[in-house]
Amino acid sequence: MTDPSKHTATLLVSAPDRPGLVHAISRFLLEHNGNIIHADQHEDAAENLFLMRVEWDLQGFTLQSREAIEQAFAPVAEAFDMRWQMHFSHSRRRMALFTSQYEHCLSDLLHRHRIGELDCEIPLVIGNHESVRDLVESHGIPFHHITITRDNKAQAEARQFALLEEAQVDTIVLARYMQILSPLFVEKYPNRVINIHHSFLPAFDGAKPYHRAHMRGVKLIGATSHYVTSELDEGPIIEQEVTRVSHRDDVADLVEKGRDLEKIVLARAVKWHLQSRVLSYNNKTVVFD
Amino acid sequence: MTDPSKHTATLLVSAPDRPGLVHAISRFLLEHNGNIIHADQHEDAAENLFLMRVEWDLQGFTLQSREAIEQAFAPVAEAFDMRWQMHFSHSRRRMALFTSQYEHCLSDLLHRHRIGELDCEIPLVIGNHESVRDLVESHGIPFHHITITRDNKAQAEARQFALLEEAQVDTIVLARYMQILSPLFVEKYPNRVINIHHSFLPAFDGAKPYHRAHMRGVKLIGATSHYVTSELDEGPIIEQEVTRVSHRDDVADLVEKGRDLEKIVLARAVKWHLQSRVLSYNNKTVVFD
Amino acid sequence: MTDPSKHTATLLVSAPDRPGLVHAISRFLLEHNGNIIHADQHEDAAENLFLMRVEWDLQGFTLQSREAIEQAFAPVAEAFDMRWQMHFSHSRRRMALFTSQYEHCLSDLLHRHRIGELDCEIPLVIGNHESVRDLVESHGIPFHHITITRDNKAQAEARQFALLEEAQVDTIVLARYMQILSPLFVEKYPNRVINIHHSFLPAFDGAKPYHRAHMRGVKLIGATSHYVTSELDEGPIIEQEVTRVSHRDDVADLVEKGRDLEKIVLARAVKWHLQSRVLSYNNKTVVFD
Amino acid sequence: MTDPSKHTATLLVSAPDRPGLVHAISRFLLEHNGNIIHADQHEDAAENLFLMRVEWDLQGFTLQSREAIEQAFAPVAEAFDMRWQMHFSHSRRRMALFTSQYEHCLSDLLHRHRIGELDCEIPLVIGNHESVRDLVESHGIPFHHITITRDNKAQAEARQFALLEEAQVDTIVLARYMQILSPLFVEKYPNRVINIHHSFLPAFDGAKPYHRAHMRGVKLIGATSHYVTSELDEGPIIEQEVTRVSHRDDVADLVEKGRDLEKIVLARAVKWHLQSRVLSYNNKTVVFD
Repeated sequence: MTDPSKHTATLLVSAPDRPGLVHAISRFLLEHNGNIIHADQHEDAAENLFLMRVEWDLQGFTLQSREAIEQAFAPVAEAFDMRWQMHFSHSRRRMALFTSQYEHCLSDLLHRHRIGELDCEIPLVIGNHESVRDLVESHGIPFHHITITRDNKAQAEARQFALLEEAQVDTIVLARYMQILSPLFVEKYPNRVINIHHSFLPAFDGAKPYHRAHMRGVKLIGATSHYVTSELDEGPIIEQEVTRVSHRDDVADLVEKGRDLEKIVLARAVKWHLQSRVLSYNNKTVVFD
Repeated sequence: MTDPSKHTATLLVSAPDRPGLVHAISRFLLEHNGNIIHADQHEDAAENLFLMRVEWDLQGFTLQSREAIEQAFAPVAEAFDMRWQMHFSHSRRRMALFTSQYEHCLSDLLHRHRIGELDCEIPLVIGNHESVRDLVESHGIPFHHITITRDNKAQAEARQFALLEEAQVDTIVLARYMQILSPLFVEKYPNRVINIHHSFLPAFDGAKPYHRAHMRGVKLIGATSHYVTSELDEGPIIEQEVTRVSHRDDVADLVEKGRDLEKIVLARAVKWHLQSRVLSYNNKTVVFD
Repeated sequence: MTDPSKHTATLLVSAPDRPGLVHAISRFLLEHNGNIIHADQHEDAAENLFLMRVEWDLQGFTLQSREAIEQAFAPVAEAFDMRWQMHFSHSRRRMALFTSQYEHCLSDLLHRHRIGELDCEIPLVIGNHESVRDLVESHGIPFHHITITRDNKAQAEARQFALLEEAQVDTIVLARYMQILSPLFVEKYPNRVINIHHSFLPAFDGAKPYHRAHMRGVKLIGATSHYVTSELDEGPIIEQEVTRVSHRDDVADLVEKGRDLEKIVLARAVKWHLQSRVLSYNNKTVVFD
Repeated sequence: MTDPSKHTATLLVSAPDRPGLVHAISRFLLEHNGNIIHADQHEDAAENLFLMRVEWDLQGFTLQSREAIEQAFAPVAEAFDMRWQMHFSHSRRRMALFTSQYEHCLSDLLHRHRIGELDCEIPLVIGNHESVRDLVESHGIPFHHITITRDNKAQAEARQFALLEEAQVDTIVLARYMQILSPLFVEKYPNRVINIHHSFLPAFDGAKPYHRAHMRGVKLIGATSHYVTSELDEGPIIEQEVTRVSHRDDVADLVEKGRDLEKIVLARAVKWHLQSRVLSYNNKTVVFD
């Protein structure tokens, strides 16, 4: 765990693999007196792709502003055809939660935020059921009730966009939201909308996964968190977990056991995303240690 | 674990649920001085089905022969519309192993048999690769090499049937056999052919599950043992297990990690089957404790 | 899951094992037209002990009051030297939560209660830190702040007893309470005080288990829920779970990962206790399916 | 998985953490045209220690012999006070197995070696029970039966040393050997003797862990692989795993379930050791990804 009192920068890079990549990045950091706190890299040999995450202490670093750092790094990146992004610990992410009447993931994330587990701001919660308002507001967070019907989908999303933009949201978590986002929505927030699906994907994608798991007689049930893409339940998987069930468990039991899975799997994905540890490529993720 | 020196009988029952079922069975045992060693029951409320497994000590039981016991129980069963089967510990099951060149499950089962974990006879192993002969014969078990081609399938199965009948086999384990059995074969051995599939079913049924799991970027891989039915990879699931993988694992890593899953999942299913703990209904299994 | 709209009775029994036990109980139920919903039994061969849990539908049962049922069953119990207890679904347990400033287990249990996962009343929460008052009161539950010091322990417990008695509490959950109960307290609530210890007992009993786990370099950390006895961390274990850690995890990471374990392990133990599924003997538990 | 047809070198390093370490190592590799295949590093902030594993392709590397490489790297290491070791894939490790009559781990490792999972030579097996000779010799490996008694321990170890030296063994695996090695033995092979203990250490160290686990009523049992040090069961832990047990499991069941744990935990530790992925410090291990 990085000391939360430290100011750090994190660089995420992917590039065609070739000698000198690590050296170029480490030289850049060394030249500006950057002390590496964590570094992790991965080579996908089949794709000839190099992926890296490096986090360094900004104390003592000779470049201080985001602009100065990015400008100094740009030529290094260009020389190696890197795709890259930088995050700075003092510029906290702004995360919106979308929710339905199923409030267990919502409640779990709000509590984790309250005790400091989630390094972000939560400027708002948007839901299509009024029943969770008290829960959200008891955490001092504004709740916006937006009903979605067959007919008002475009207007409803337009209102969501307005709220998200006003609140400068960069990450959206679908905490059992139970509504399909439009392609437009997905396109506006690439790799920035995290969903929890209540099955072990790709098994039981789509509707009523617990019912279908019960019908099939599986001995384990699962949950999957993934970035949302235009294909339903087909986005890059961030995390999965399973738990054991038996013939004694009816559908209601699966739903109850599944709630614990959903909470934990979604919380892990959200944490890793907020720590800039997740990099997507080829519809998969690398989750750096 | 039942004391292996004891002679016991095990009754497996399913019946429409109604009051008096447990009482009728317990009275039958009490009347003949049967001491219950294990009993477990399950009610499927949605199907209104009662399922039970009871094992009792044959020492002191006033009925001794299989025929006498079955004859005495028949009227109890009839009164409650039971479907039932009995197994006797002194009449060990006879199990054939079918194998391909992938020998890890084969080797694992042979070793478990050698050290007494599997309560059965293994009168023969049938394989379509000569390479495992030494391994099998080093355990003192005959190996039969039967090549399967597109053209000789019927004849090859006819030869398999002859060997199975001659050896009085009642259970067949496909230890990574990698051949699809004919409908005729499946029909001859209902709920008596156990397969291991190298995925977490229903995900990745069919061919090359590890390749497809890698392509999809899952974070866990699995293995599934099930009874073989006429629908490929669709039979009643007996056991499943998963293990964690990451972006660092290429397909060869998944294959290697998967081998450990396959061995353990198949071994559990085989053990439970041999202990008469598995009851199939509605294309699912109850695995009694 | 038992249909929550049903009224049921649950019997927990232990007795010296001998033929006729199951028959006697099933006959008692049959004679009064009891329809068994769940039954599970266990024989501890080494101790010659028979243990059983049976739950039946009170609709149609010819005995209706708790008194009538207990009176009718007493002679059966006596004939077989049974120790027994009965619980009735319409007489909900009354559970107090004890807490410190570590509020994750508290918050988790309150939320589970809110969404109907815990079949009990929670008439009060007692804590030695004022900081959780808001959380508790936002659930509409009274919070009592009782400070414990080296000097006031006896008086503080006396006040706790008064509150517990006034609220007719029968079950106490130490949700990371971090105070050792006096022998008098433990004696008053045998097998009715559930604690969560943040290690895989018997490893790291006592203080600072995460620090000691980190120092020892373990690859898994655990949590254990148990009934409190007069020996610290030595009571009958109800549930345990572990999660993987690595050299990358410092003590703060273990604490954070451990919170998820503690929540789940404590919640399972509480649920099973409330469902009358836990029976203690010889400082162990049987958790009936 | 590194392509097994490649010749690679692997460097393991620990050093006091300071800026420039990664840069120095990456420059060394770049200067000699080394293409990094895997790199992983760890910073132990509490100890101010930097640890790294880097594997590179020897094809195209301008230094070819072990001597040339080590000589060129020595000044880099000295400049940063590194402790370091290098391994070369074409110089396979030589591993001896020590065993008792409990043959499941032995059989498992021999089978893994047979199918190519373990990248090493196994020049000999030493055991104190004649019963496993056939199993070992069927794999074409010499078996040496050395009986250990209270009186002959020093002579028996002398004979073991002679055999190990003659066979140029560098790694020793205690595959349920059930004998305590002398301090002299441990000193001769520091961090090179791997043991499997049949409990979740530090719980149940010493004798009869399954009996004690059963007595304590734990809900999970475990196994632990570790490097052997002079303190019994106190060496650096390489890997641990657990499996669920219940009140239904007697000691014999724990022993049987434990065998599967022991096999998998020991096999993982052995594989990681052979891949030069394990680095010990402060009586802990770093297992590099």
